[in-house]
Amino acid sequence: MEIVKQLSYIPLFEGLEQRHLEHLAAIVAKRKYRRGETIFSEGAEANGFYIITSGKVKIFKTAPDGKEQILHIFGMGEPFGEVPVFTGRSYPANAEALSDASTFFFPRNAFIGLIKQDPSLALNMLSVLSMRLKRFAALIEDLSLKEVPGRLAAYLLYLSQQNRNARDLTLDISKTQLAAILGTIPETLSRILSRMTYEGIIESDERHHIRIKDRKALELLADGNKIVR
Amino acid sequence: MEIVKQLSYIPLFEGLEQRHLEHLAAIVAKRKYRRGETIFSEGAEANGFYIITSGKVKIFKTAPDGKEQILHIFGMGEPFGEVPVFTGRSYPANAEALSDASTFFFPRNAFIGLIKQDPSLALNMLSVLSMRLKRFAALIEDLSLKEVPGRLAAYLLYLSQQNRNARDLTLDISKTQLAAILGTIPETLSRILSRMTYEGIIESDERHHIRIKDRKALELLADGNKIVR
Repeated sequence: MEIVKQLSYIPLFEGLEQRHLEHLAAIVAKRKYRRGETIFSEGAEANGFYIITSGKVKIFKTAPDGKEQILHIFGMGEPFGEVPVFTGRSYPANAEALSDASTFFFPRNAFIGLIKQDPSLALNMLSVLSMRLKRFAALIEDLSLKEVPGRLAAYLLYLSQQNRNARDLTLDISKTQLAAILGTIPETLSRILSRMTYEGIIESDERHHIRIKDRKALELLADGNKIVR
Repeated sequence: MEIVKQLSYIPLFEGLEQRHLEHLAAIVAKRKYRRGETIFSEGAEANGFYIITSGKVKIFKTAPDGKEQILHIFGMGEPFGEVPVFTGRSYPANAEALSDASTFFFPRNAFIGLIKQDPSLALNMLSVLSMRLKRFAALIEDLSLKEVPGRLAAYLLYLSQQNRNARDLTLDISKTQLAAILGTIPETLSRILSRMTYEGIIESDERHHIRIKDRKALELLADGNKIVR
């Protein structure tokens, strides 16, 4: 298949203009790896990024005791190594082919040259990533709305019990950390807090204070019941 | 609070270098809106993008019959209008303050000027978005792994029934569409297919063919049971 066409199917480049795809096609190199082959090593200069066209690649770190910690396993269409390439840092982990794998390789210098010559490529990629993030955030919200309110209710009741059943609670962690603990993202956590405030279950300011207004409703939520009013 | 510091807390700019934050602070304008006030209208030239610093904003379209279709409701820290600004198109929908709201406004020309002058700002923002996408994708995978395999199994059994209980199935939709129907993303769907292949339940190539190898296991999965082997 023509390279420009193949590039147009890659999520990172989805919706780019034809001329941008042609510029990218002009700098890309195909690289193949045998199962078990090292693609790059932690600490090496990030001289380019990869997009998998077939097979699987594992990204891992090795602990001082030699134990391997797998960070990601990536498959077809997924990029890896792009974050250090974009920021100019070294590769933060090792990459190894988990199966025979083919990749597109984009050399850093050529890629940065493209962006200097035509910043609209970077702007288009920003718009692609921004749109994907919004889609992903909406999906996380859909998936979260089933269980996260219950987990949040359980957490708030726990916090209250730790403080002699206090009604007025102060979160001692950031909303980003709390979102991670509850298995969601800060944006969704904020919406759930607003919703529970709207429903009169709690009162929440945009900071760290939460007041329990309806403990019974909170207990029902924590038990996995949906509150309908 | 100092603007540079406020900018550093915004997810879109998380992890940007100090000088990039200072450049952004030099072009940002604070804009406040009263509840119900129009921020921009569909079809207007996208002359800048917004990040909410307090309150809520709704993004909506108006149907020919005057009915309002809400596309998003955004809250603190979330950007809107950035996609058309990045791509140079007009605003694709209307934005209106749902409550009194404060925003940071980044004028398009000044923002593009910054990127032309220092492409590393765009590269840093690409790395920020790319990292967030990977975190979001991992979270979607965590959230999906509970229910999506069961839904996929139900879908495959349905497809088989439609074809006189055939073992060899051909998906008549793209994996992106199938992922959307099942409530996940293509990357996660691919991983679930690989996992089910590894477990001997199906055989799946990287295209549209799926062979049912263990119908009983598929039925158990569809009934909400986890297969442990």
